[in-house]
Amino acid sequence: MTVTAAQGFRAAGVAAGLKSTGAPDVALVVNDGPSSAAAAVFTSNRCRANPVLWSAEAIKTGSARAVVLNSGGANCYTGAEGFQLTHATAELVGELLSGGGSGPRAEDGPVGAIDVQVCSTGLIGLLNDRDDLLAGVRAAHAELSDDGGAAAAAAIMTTDTVSKQSVAEGTDAAGRAFTVGGMAKGAGMLAPALATMLVVVTTDADVDAATLDAALRRATRVTFDRLDSDGCQSTNDTVLLMASGASGASPTVDELAEHVTAVCHDLALQLLADAEGADHEISIEVRGAASEDDAVEVARSVARSNLFKAAVFGKDPNWGRVLASVGTTSATFDPADLDVALNGVWVCRDSGPGEPATSVSLEDRAVSVTIDLKSGSETATVWTNDLTHAYVHENSAYSS
Amino acid sequence: MTVTAAQGFRAAGVAAGLKSTGAPDVALVVNDGPSSAAAAVFTSNRCRANPVLWSAEAIKTGSARAVVLNSGGANCYTGAEGFQLTHATAELVGELLSGGGSGPRAEDGPVGAIDVQVCSTGLIGLLNDRDDLLAGVRAAHAELSDDGGAAAAAAIMTTDTVSKQSVAEGTDAAGRAFTVGGMAKGAGMLAPALATMLVVVTTDADVDAATLDAALRRATRVTFDRLDSDGCQSTNDTVLLMASGASGASPTVDELAEHVTAVCHDLALQLLADAEGADHEISIEVRGAASEDDAVEVARSVARSNLFKAAVFGKDPNWGRVLASVGTTSATFDPADLDVALNGVWVCRDSGPGEPATSVSLEDRAVSVTIDLKSGSETATVWTNDLTHAYVHENSAYSS
Repeated sequence: MTVTAAQGFRAAGVAAGLKSTGAPDVALVVNDGPSSAAAAVFTSNRCRANPVLWSAEAIKTGSARAVVLNSGGANCYTGAEGFQLTHATAELVGELLSGGGSGPRAEDGPVGAIDVQVCSTGLIGLLNDRDDLLAGVRAAHAELSDDGGAAAAAAIMTTDTVSKQSVAEGTDAAGRAFTVGGMAKGAGMLAPALATMLVVVTTDADVDAATLDAALRRATRVTFDRLDSDGCQSTNDTVLLMASGASGASPTVDELAEHVTAVCHDLALQLLADAEGADHEISIEVRGAASEDDAVEVARSVARSNLFKAAVFGKDPNWGRVLASVGTTSATFDPADLDVALNGVWVCRDSGPGEPATSVSLEDRAVSVTIDLKSGSETATVWTNDLTHAYVHENSAYSS
Repeated sequence: MTVTAAQGFRAAGVAAGLKSTGAPDVALVVNDGPSSAAAAVFTSNRCRANPVLWSAEAIKTGSARAVVLNSGGANCYTGAEGFQLTHATAELVGELLSGGGSGPRAEDGPVGAIDVQVCSTGLIGLLNDRDDLLAGVRAAHAELSDDGGAAAAAAIMTTDTVSKQSVAEGTDAAGRAFTVGGMAKGAGMLAPALATMLVVVTTDADVDAATLDAALRRATRVTFDRLDSDGCQSTNDTVLLMASGASGASPTVDELAEHVTAVCHDLALQLLADAEGADHEISIEVRGAASEDDAVEVARSVARSNLFKAAVFGKDPNWGRVLASVGTTSATFDPADLDVALNGVWVCRDSGPGEPATSVSLEDRAVSVTIDLKSGSETATVWTNDLTHAYVHENSAYSS
């Protein structure tokens, strides 16, 4: 199970005809409460899609009754009409939830557009067909169910080859159980501060929006923010966390953050494993750093080296390309005193050749790079992929 | 002609057996004076190769009698032995030039190691065979000639498919002619502040080291520094400018910089055209910027977008990927008011669709991207290549 693993949530995924393939392309996740606390983080790209422009404002209420997602187009740089379509989508979800049996509890009052988060993914500059999209929203509403999480996760896929879902269970200090469940999509443009990534995480914990926000930021900082598939940053990224309170459990920020982080970590590694055209998943751990920021900066610089990433694709343990990337950073280290290990073999010691690079095998998909800056005790890990022919193929042919 | 186009210079290029292919791999350029003024800029990578560590110190004298270059290995992260080999190479060149007929004029006194610049290129972590290298230096010295420029240019090639040479002619205020000539190598890792790029520029102008330094920095700032083939920054980049004074012309900084810039610009575009595996040369012009720094930052962000570069390879006029890159910068602009042209067609107006992208043809190698930030009057151009299968192939197979 997934976003419907936690009590109080229903979901659906349907095919609205936005995708030429006829694959599912509209998802709806509804929080039936009793709470509607919510928090979200969005792309740090200044060029933001219409759904992000909308949702970033709407989330300021600290509440969300539902999120509607479509994978048929990014609705980014589509002009005034694009924002209107985002708003109309939110408005329609509000109307549907306010009318009768499928809505939230009557005592909560009618659901307005402001209570609805909107996410989109797909090609920039493309406006979805309004009638198709709104019909899809109605169809999704009609299909809402307690076990609709898997269908919703499938409906947000674009070039993903598999849907991504994860669940974690926790208990609060009083021993009351709560559940955190999530779904994610994204298979390219995974870069700092999120990228072409839509993530919805739900929990039945009973916590306020400030607690959710703190737990979510703590989780994304060490998971999605450290996934850097190709250095490109999307216009649409959203990670939304909604709490129904239905379990009655009241975890602290620490207790909640632990499980939200577990779900986000699991989803992040699923995104990494499904990145467009990748042959290897590369984890880059920097240790001995003077600060965590230094460690992240160094790891990210290696994650963005096309030369190193192409070498990994070629199964070439080219540690010189690692050092060349480390040298571009402003982190604290002595350029003459760096150690580098590939898959645990310390091929570079004190900035010179160490163990023979020929003893490193890069046959397996998982590759670990360890860099010791010998300048402190901080550490960080960034994840990336190799640069392959399939990556070039997928990204040169995507929009045509 | 090339580095020997200017009066007062001799050069040679020989095969010393450092390359397994038997191709030429050692070059020597000697300044016979009367002046030996020199200036250089080096990679801003903090992980610098032994020749850079040496040359950056030696150039502080403002003088260089010769430069010796090898293309058989980067001599980077090769331990203490690597630095010793660099020094031994400089020392040998000094001895050879001090002894008899092939040296500079006797009145200048013996040539020491400190008078010799050293450059290397090739694989990191690989130490060249000392005997082979020193024998190659002797052979190059024996072959020095007034028209050895072409041979020297050929001997510094690695994955370059053609050698790069350029010449410009100027006159000073008194009408005296002077020549600027240059050679370059580099076909990958072309990135800000220079990358796997070795460039030697000579002139017979009679100017001091400070004038040379100013002219060189003015030239590289708008040429090599704005070449960003794949965002990777080398450990070995060097651009050296040597003046013999043999023409007797005494240009001002402005006069000299104009012609040094012309040669550097020409060499930079030759490097771009020969970048590893590229199908397109892409010029990214940013106009309407509040500052030149803003213009460079925005242009560079697009130059580093793997997604945009893969789209160009696929001949896909994907302006959405341009905007997504612009949005990652801190430049001054209104995200809702950007214009983008591809090959002169304004496919994006006011951050929305403009002319039909279908009217853009990306069949030719030359592709122009124009971005109007509408926030000022500054402008800058950065050059890059597309991301191709051949790039992945060359860089995944290079060291094996």
